[in-house]
Amino acid sequence: MSTLAFAGELATAPAQTRISMKTAVAGVTGYAGAELARLLLAHPCLQDAEPLFLGRMDAVADATTLYDLHPQLARNTFAGGGRPAPSVVPFTWQTLRDSGTEVLFLATPHEQSREWVPEALANGIRVIDLSGAWRLHDPANAAVYKLEDAEPALASSLQQEAVYGCPELHRDEIATARLVANPGCYATSIILALAPLLQAGLVDLDHGVVCDAKSGVSGGGKAATAKTHFMYAADNLSAYAVFGHRHTGELLEQLGLSADQIQFTPHLLPIPRGILSTIYLRLNEPSTAAQIEDTLRQFYATSPMVRVRRAGDLPQIQHVVRTGFCDIGFELAPDGKRLVLVSCLDNLLKGAASQAVQNLNVMAGWNEEEGLL
Amino acid sequence: MSTLAFAGELATAPAQTRISMKTAVAGVTGYAGAELARLLLAHPCLQDAEPLFLGRMDAVADATTLYDLHPQLARNTFAGGGRPAPSVVPFTWQTLRDSGTEVLFLATPHEQSREWVPEALANGIRVIDLSGAWRLHDPANAAVYKLEDAEPALASSLQQEAVYGCPELHRDEIATARLVANPGCYATSIILALAPLLQAGLVDLDHGVVCDAKSGVSGGGKAATAKTHFMYAADNLSAYAVFGHRHTGELLEQLGLSADQIQFTPHLLPIPRGILSTIYLRLNEPSTAAQIEDTLRQFYATSPMVRVRRAGDLPQIQHVVRTGFCDIGFELAPDGKRLVLVSCLDNLLKGAASQAVQNLNVMAGWNEEEGLL
Amino acid sequence: MSTLAFAGELATAPAQTRISMKTAVAGVTGYAGAELARLLLAHPCLQDAEPLFLGRMDAVADATTLYDLHPQLARNTFAGGGRPAPSVVPFTWQTLRDSGTEVLFLATPHEQSREWVPEALANGIRVIDLSGAWRLHDPANAAVYKLEDAEPALASSLQQEAVYGCPELHRDEIATARLVANPGCYATSIILALAPLLQAGLVDLDHGVVCDAKSGVSGGGKAATAKTHFMYAADNLSAYAVFGHRHTGELLEQLGLSADQIQFTPHLLPIPRGILSTIYLRLNEPSTAAQIEDTLRQFYATSPMVRVRRAGDLPQIQHVVRTGFCDIGFELAPDGKRLVLVSCLDNLLKGAASQAVQNLNVMAGWNEEEGLL
Amino acid sequence: MSTLAFAGELATAPAQTRISMKTAVAGVTGYAGAELARLLLAHPCLQDAEPLFLGRMDAVADATTLYDLHPQLARNTFAGGGRPAPSVVPFTWQTLRDSGTEVLFLATPHEQSREWVPEALANGIRVIDLSGAWRLHDPANAAVYKLEDAEPALASSLQQEAVYGCPELHRDEIATARLVANPGCYATSIILALAPLLQAGLVDLDHGVVCDAKSGVSGGGKAATAKTHFMYAADNLSAYAVFGHRHTGELLEQLGLSADQIQFTPHLLPIPRGILSTIYLRLNEPSTAAQIEDTLRQFYATSPMVRVRRAGDLPQIQHVVRTGFCDIGFELAPDGKRLVLVSCLDNLLKGAASQAVQNLNVMAGWNEEEGLL
Repeated sequence: MSTLAFAGELATAPAQTRISMKTAVAGVTGYAGAELARLLLAHPCLQDAEPLFLGRMDAVADATTLYDLHPQLARNTFAGGGRPAPSVVPFTWQTLRDSGTEVLFLATPHEQSREWVPEALANGIRVIDLSGAWRLHDPANAAVYKLEDAEPALASSLQQEAVYGCPELHRDEIATARLVANPGCYATSIILALAPLLQAGLVDLDHGVVCDAKSGVSGGGKAATAKTHFMYAADNLSAYAVFGHRHTGELLEQLGLSADQIQFTPHLLPIPRGILSTIYLRLNEPSTAAQIEDTLRQFYATSPMVRVRRAGDLPQIQHVVRTGFCDIGFELAPDGKRLVLVSCLDNLLKGAASQAVQNLNVMAGWNEEEGLL
Repeated sequence: MSTLAFAGELATAPAQTRISMKTAVAGVTGYAGAELARLLLAHPCLQDAEPLFLGRMDAVADATTLYDLHPQLARNTFAGGGRPAPSVVPFTWQTLRDSGTEVLFLATPHEQSREWVPEALANGIRVIDLSGAWRLHDPANAAVYKLEDAEPALASSLQQEAVYGCPELHRDEIATARLVANPGCYATSIILALAPLLQAGLVDLDHGVVCDAKSGVSGGGKAATAKTHFMYAADNLSAYAVFGHRHTGELLEQLGLSADQIQFTPHLLPIPRGILSTIYLRLNEPSTAAQIEDTLRQFYATSPMVRVRRAGDLPQIQHVVRTGFCDIGFELAPDGKRLVLVSCLDNLLKGAASQAVQNLNVMAGWNEEEGLL
Repeated sequence: MSTLAFAGELATAPAQTRISMKTAVAGVTGYAGAELARLLLAHPCLQDAEPLFLGRMDAVADATTLYDLHPQLARNTFAGGGRPAPSVVPFTWQTLRDSGTEVLFLATPHEQSREWVPEALANGIRVIDLSGAWRLHDPANAAVYKLEDAEPALASSLQQEAVYGCPELHRDEIATARLVANPGCYATSIILALAPLLQAGLVDLDHGVVCDAKSGVSGGGKAATAKTHFMYAADNLSAYAVFGHRHTGELLEQLGLSADQIQFTPHLLPIPRGILSTIYLRLNEPSTAAQIEDTLRQFYATSPMVRVRRAGDLPQIQHVVRTGFCDIGFELAPDGKRLVLVSCLDNLLKGAASQAVQNLNVMAGWNEEEGLL
Repeated sequence: MSTLAFAGELATAPAQTRISMKTAVAGVTGYAGAELARLLLAHPCLQDAEPLFLGRMDAVADATTLYDLHPQLARNTFAGGGRPAPSVVPFTWQTLRDSGTEVLFLATPHEQSREWVPEALANGIRVIDLSGAWRLHDPANAAVYKLEDAEPALASSLQQEAVYGCPELHRDEIATARLVANPGCYATSIILALAPLLQAGLVDLDHGVVCDAKSGVSGGGKAATAKTHFMYAADNLSAYAVFGHRHTGELLEQLGLSADQIQFTPHLLPIPRGILSTIYLRLNEPSTAAQIEDTLRQFYATSPMVRVRRAGDLPQIQHVVRTGFCDIGFELAPDGKRLVLVSCLDNLLKGAASQAVQNLNVMAGWNEEEGLL
């Protein structure tokens, strides 16, 4: 399973090179965009290079600063300190080129990302795309996005070139990638829990894996819809997209599984943010809790953003919300064969914005956790 | 203050006449409409006359039963029991006439109510309108709704004829009214708390009254907007419409106050339903808690749907949610002059649907609390 | 599987006998007790026989009426109507005997129920116990409750006599039972979803069943603990009691399964009430959605309190909260073999109080749904 | 009004002296303690001097690290990075002395703070006390805390020496203080909104000021009580301590008002954290929005942690939660006399922990906002 081959090898962190990079964020009006802006503005390596913030022309018409869009990010300009509010400007290629942008974050709908990536690369700009447009290598899996490309051959080639932006699995490829496809939030929580056990060959795949995942409402985006209405989500829980969620393809490709080996059901939680995935599987051979914990710890020995919990000490959503961590815990049945994994992360951070910054760090040769602790 | 003159006089409830009436609900797709449907279907006096449920043509196209629209209302059709799911049909005047509707509930936007009421009355159908279209008698106050009438003279005449549907204040007029304007949710909570003290002449009006009101999100209606998005409302509190909320006119007219005598600020609470209004005033003369409690109790001696609390025993939103009650409590400062009133109700019930049914009961000569306990 | 044998047989509802019964509720201070009080006070067959409400002596010392304990239940005593607030009195056997109680609801901790049931039966009082004390017939399963009995032989005999109070499975036995053990909330949601498919022999038991269940905080009871603290539960989700929840024994006994055939993990939801269980299984043979739906519908053809949803139309917690229903829906994978069931109920109602009243109805020979719609 | 005299004078920030200090936090098990730990661990000036974390002996018995107590704060120890989990040790004076602590944060109950402060000062340790024990100079106001002192004369003298830790009002005194009494959360939100207008003499004090304040549940502390139970707080709103909240004395002393000039009613919001205070007053003379905004801006010209909003642009709780800011906005009535102020902050940060760190910064001569942005 070559997709899992990279994790254990980076025993030494790359030498830290504290030179700045010029970044840009398209789609700064949304939830992930706001988190990206927050993280990049506070990033130690970016203090001399304010990111360029880009929004849709209609959304930024009468809100010209980041603080107008997201008042929680505002800082004072006061005697002896403070910096002016960062501008948010309409997206144009000219603006991007003029700014000297080296890395562009796309926090945009997948159709938009699909359209923009070829042009960004043609302009010599590396891209970290937070949408689902470039995550899937198998066209059959990617079909769920109903993508239409102006230049299908180029798109198909880029699709293969794109690196799945899970640093815990693909650090080396990310370091040199032109196009990083930032993983889905549900997918990240499930892949990080399962990858170590699958790589170690412990999982009884004939029996299959059940992933019961639950996410806060921000996962549904900022658009006001019937399902993001407070009255729909509050005091409620609902399962959706059973047998058909878009992130399923990521699980199959990244974990090397077939559709009948893994089952994934998402649920909408009445909370703003956070994902908890409860994962049920059987081991090929009876094991001990110590062996399971050891397998997880070794896999993540060089990964600052995954926290492995002690056996029986399960993570909760509160432990990870507003952090860049994925927490993984487990309980093993007395028979030593039935295993329940619990994996938690913040869907807007390790499931989106902080994972994107983690990828930036890897691409820039900075410490992977820079600006995320 | 003639608006307050009716409360104390109905020491004897009207004789109960258990004959059914044919009712109809327009706007059954919304939150208040769903509550109306629930209350009317369970109403003891309506067991032989299922209400006619009407919706917008687009909303009821592929949802032809009430249970499709509101699964929580569904009942089984099972061997030996159950009744078929009530149909929801598009609104047409022909349908209304054919059904023999005697009382029509309008749970519709105020523009719609404004347009439909003249025609309903012309068809001999009495109307209980839950919108703000007909609540205000003073055209200056009503201007906030920017109403446009096909026949201004008729509309103006109906505006004066319309009875403000607060049974605790206007029972006699409601009993014979053709058009009842069901009060606003905030207005109900504030008017019911203040009316007894104002009628008794206890309030220092030079000092003025401050009404700090807080409502759950259902008060904003079913439309998916930026402000009804879960991510906006959850874990948040915001004041809005300071000095400009539409319900202000109801306070002025029903309480006989001028704009600088009462100040009302609504807030959006991160809960589905419920209103709590905290009301600050000074008394003309030092008083005792017993006198205040007595004033409230006497005023509501014949009112089944107002619960007066003991001095110092303040109501909370939990006490009234999913009930048809308005709870009123208070604390008096040691100086005997500064008074804080707390008034709670469910904005979808006593602030909308159950108050409408209370009005139906009065109009039909049934017990005022019928179907509401 | 004899436990599943009763459901299909009651094609005709028992003749309604509208004679009253004298009931009592012990533990009326808690959440389930409050719901029981609400349901019994409104029960059509009990309008002439107010239940006797009993509380712990310390809890009812200075709160002598039901309305003091639960202000949301209060009604006015007003001119021409209303009834006085029901008293809540300390539990004593003398009080029970003097009241002529025929059926006693125990909404008490399991230790208390274990102690009181023998004496109640000895006094000729039938019992509906809402605790876990008498639900499990196999002593190995019951050991989880660490029960200590004054008279072990009697207790053991009663343990076998006790009828598991799931009317959909055991109507006939409940009708004549002296001791009904009201089911656990999680157990009810899972048993009702699985029983029809297991009875029909459709489930691949070699593969096993995964039950991922989520409950609101009221399931944890009224005691203020670290885990019922708002700051622990709000904006959070946590799995707990993996491989060790007390309700597991009910699943094994009622569904006739062994411990490695069914896996049940509960989670704490940040909502007041409601349970949603997502259940994963494989069918022995490929099936169609119509066959699954038909199997469910036939099983519940005479059950008013279970609502079977159409294939693909999944229930949500909002659909069942504050109702006495259990809603069951499902999705079948395109392969016709992998099945996901979703089962929802209100843990305080179908998971506790309304199920208890449903049992009362069966015991009294009333319509099973009486007072619950 | 000398209490308001200091704000405008610090046009130049004190020279930054980046030398570390040895700090300690007592009461790190609670909510404010956890926030203090988080802030201090990330504080740029404290990277070479890890704070000493102290807890109650029973609470830290089997949880010896900060990460055990607060898993959300955990960081990995990984190859090439990470630092070991900070220890939490039982509080003893010997431990404090041995550690060389210069500044001690007390996030402890007021009785504890009252007992410990004299000894800490005697040991030459400066104290920032987050409790209410030392905030009030007038013994009549302080009586609400029912304080009992071993050495009344010493305590009385320290009571007068203690500086009210609102840097926006008392920067100079804080800079040299031995004992800083960190303000109450409600009090901070109200004082910061009113101080500029009172200092400018704009407020009609004959008319009085109404402060309707609402706080999230964390304000009630970590103890599991009936009122911090999820079932009490969720989906609810309740007013409490009308005419009698402990923070009232802070308002009187810091704003120079008498009890009948200001009225303060707190409410419990169903959210984890955040305070919004809605403040109603009349101006002595008609004013313009620009004048009000200017008065606020000038007062806070040198204050990095107060954000003044534009006229009519009201802050919300979401804007300040998890920040160290107090946001102040307002609306002025068309008559130019009635003013509504809205003031928001995070009760655990600007209402507790970040305000304490702000005080540390002032005491140490660091930038006031260091570690808070």
